[in-house]
Amino acid sequence: MESGNSQFFVGIDIGGTKIQVVIADRHGAIHGEARKKHKGAVDFEWVVGRSVAAVDAALDKAKLGRKEISALGIGAPSPILPDGTAVHAPNLGWQNVPLVATFAQELGWPTYAANDCDAGTFGEHRFGAGQAAQTVVGLFMGTGIGGGLVRNGEILAGDNYQGAEFGHTKVQVGGQRCGCGARGCLEAYASKLGIASFVAHQVNCEGRETMLTELCDGDYRSLRSSALAKAYRATDAVAVAAIDQAADYLGIGVANAITLLAPSVIVLGGGVIEALGSLLLDRVVSAAEQASWPPGSFADTSIRLAKLGDHAVALGAAAWAIQRGQF
Amino acid sequence: MESGNSQFFVGIDIGGTKIQVVIADRHGAIHGEARKKHKGAVDFEWVVGRSVAAVDAALDKAKLGRKEISALGIGAPSPILPDGTAVHAPNLGWQNVPLVATFAQELGWPTYAANDCDAGTFGEHRFGAGQAAQTVVGLFMGTGIGGGLVRNGEILAGDNYQGAEFGHTKVQVGGQRCGCGARGCLEAYASKLGIASFVAHQVNCEGRETMLTELCDGDYRSLRSSALAKAYRATDAVAVAAIDQAADYLGIGVANAITLLAPSVIVLGGGVIEALGSLLLDRVVSAAEQASWPPGSFADTSIRLAKLGDHAVALGAAAWAIQRGQF
Repeated sequence: MESGNSQFFVGIDIGGTKIQVVIADRHGAIHGEARKKHKGAVDFEWVVGRSVAAVDAALDKAKLGRKEISALGIGAPSPILPDGTAVHAPNLGWQNVPLVATFAQELGWPTYAANDCDAGTFGEHRFGAGQAAQTVVGLFMGTGIGGGLVRNGEILAGDNYQGAEFGHTKVQVGGQRCGCGARGCLEAYASKLGIASFVAHQVNCEGRETMLTELCDGDYRSLRSSALAKAYRATDAVAVAAIDQAADYLGIGVANAITLLAPSVIVLGGGVIEALGSLLLDRVVSAAEQASWPPGSFADTSIRLAKLGDHAVALGAAAWAIQRGQF
Repeated sequence: MESGNSQFFVGIDIGGTKIQVVIADRHGAIHGEARKKHKGAVDFEWVVGRSVAAVDAALDKAKLGRKEISALGIGAPSPILPDGTAVHAPNLGWQNVPLVATFAQELGWPTYAANDCDAGTFGEHRFGAGQAAQTVVGLFMGTGIGGGLVRNGEILAGDNYQGAEFGHTKVQVGGQRCGCGARGCLEAYASKLGIASFVAHQVNCEGRETMLTELCDGDYRSLRSSALAKAYRATDAVAVAAIDQAADYLGIGVANAITLLAPSVIVLGGGVIEALGSLLLDRVVSAAEQASWPPGSFADTSIRLAKLGDHAVALGAAAWAIQRGQF
């Protein structure tokens, strides 16, 4: 066995409600993992401490010591500057935290970081549904819509590292209000928040009934992907209409990505897709076909479900460390 | 003088209604030029012949012979494959023509080609409003909306070389019908075709009057940019409403480019902008500010009027030849 094949890497996914750690090799096989829940808006120092504890727990499961790790990759819900600063993570309440420097000092490994959606896209590119493609776009339908863009093994996030905000491109000028304050964002339609506002409108303004009301105690913004999947599979009319609309708009997002970026692969992931993807894929693809240009670009783009599930960000962060550190 | 400074390059802009040739040096100075009009849907062989005649006319004006030219660049209204094939130029009726091979054989120079909007963006990047920027987006408002994307001196047009179709991204799902057959494309609003359909609706369906009717003999689709500028400056109410709507949507296109690509510079060009740009810029910028995300990306992007006017494509094609051939 070559020495390179016995190297191990740590990937940390710092999410809005959890910290997830994987110990991976360079082929993306997971040798140990750990997960810690939290309640959002958490102090950076607290996250560092919990992350280190999770890393040690994952190392235990992998039967590895800290000395056997070659590098660390971190995915975080923030733009990441080249110096490793996390610029702003609204879900965590962070502003300009020294993400890479702090973890490098704490754990002593070469450390690299990427935005979580970029890391997820990079993970799918390296180990999942987007392997061997020159350009890969990732679109992640969860509470919001996140996106990432990888080209020639490089994450493209714009000259200020804050681009690839697919969820906030405008697809319906003057339309539905988005959480960002603007109207007509893709996220205002093709996300759980978009689904929630559609359902709330149907119930409160149109007087319709849906099993979703009971499944979320009437708090539609807290709807879980599993509840959506249950209602969709039960052909609950309001749930079907809401989710179909979200899928149609996700298809518009896919189409705009094809029209602008002509990637070889578009990977669809995120909680709603995890729960319902195979039921929605045909609808998304059909909407994308109608809306993308030129027709040859639609034909040249493969639209695929993500393969790495909720390991995508942590594995992608580990892959990013391997790439950036040339391990 | 270094030998490199006395090299000359030819750029040809093959447009929908004209062929334009420049003789340029590596600093973008024009030493001779020529222009030939045509009527569109023209045979490839005919275009080659007219182009060669225009090249010789431009060389005459520059007092240069064919032997003094180092390379040729061509901009054409088609996706261009790496082997120099022009895939489809709907305005010219071309399908898979050997653009680079034919010109290289005809003129004997190292020959390179790019899509016209890509070439225009590259020209602005090299010699015009987008100099020294890492990423430059060009948006050209003419009969339609064309776009180009240049990053680190490279034209990015997607894995199949057919992307960067900014004009056909959807910004108004279910909205105005576009020439491509779909609804809600940016081009259906932010172009002369979009302006024409707005004006036609105001006159034919709302019974409003406008000086534009006389300026185009009632054929709104043939409206020239100069006529639009005349009516706008005369504060003709229908013209102002139509053009302001187009500017607002161009701002949406700018915003979506910022949100996705976070370029350092967005260059606005094309016939309508040439004729009216300084009157519209504030409106475009204001619409872009409202619709782009995150706010920091708007602040980090400079939105500028093009500097090269209708030489952008020919100069950009020459610059592309210099870049690709490493002259």
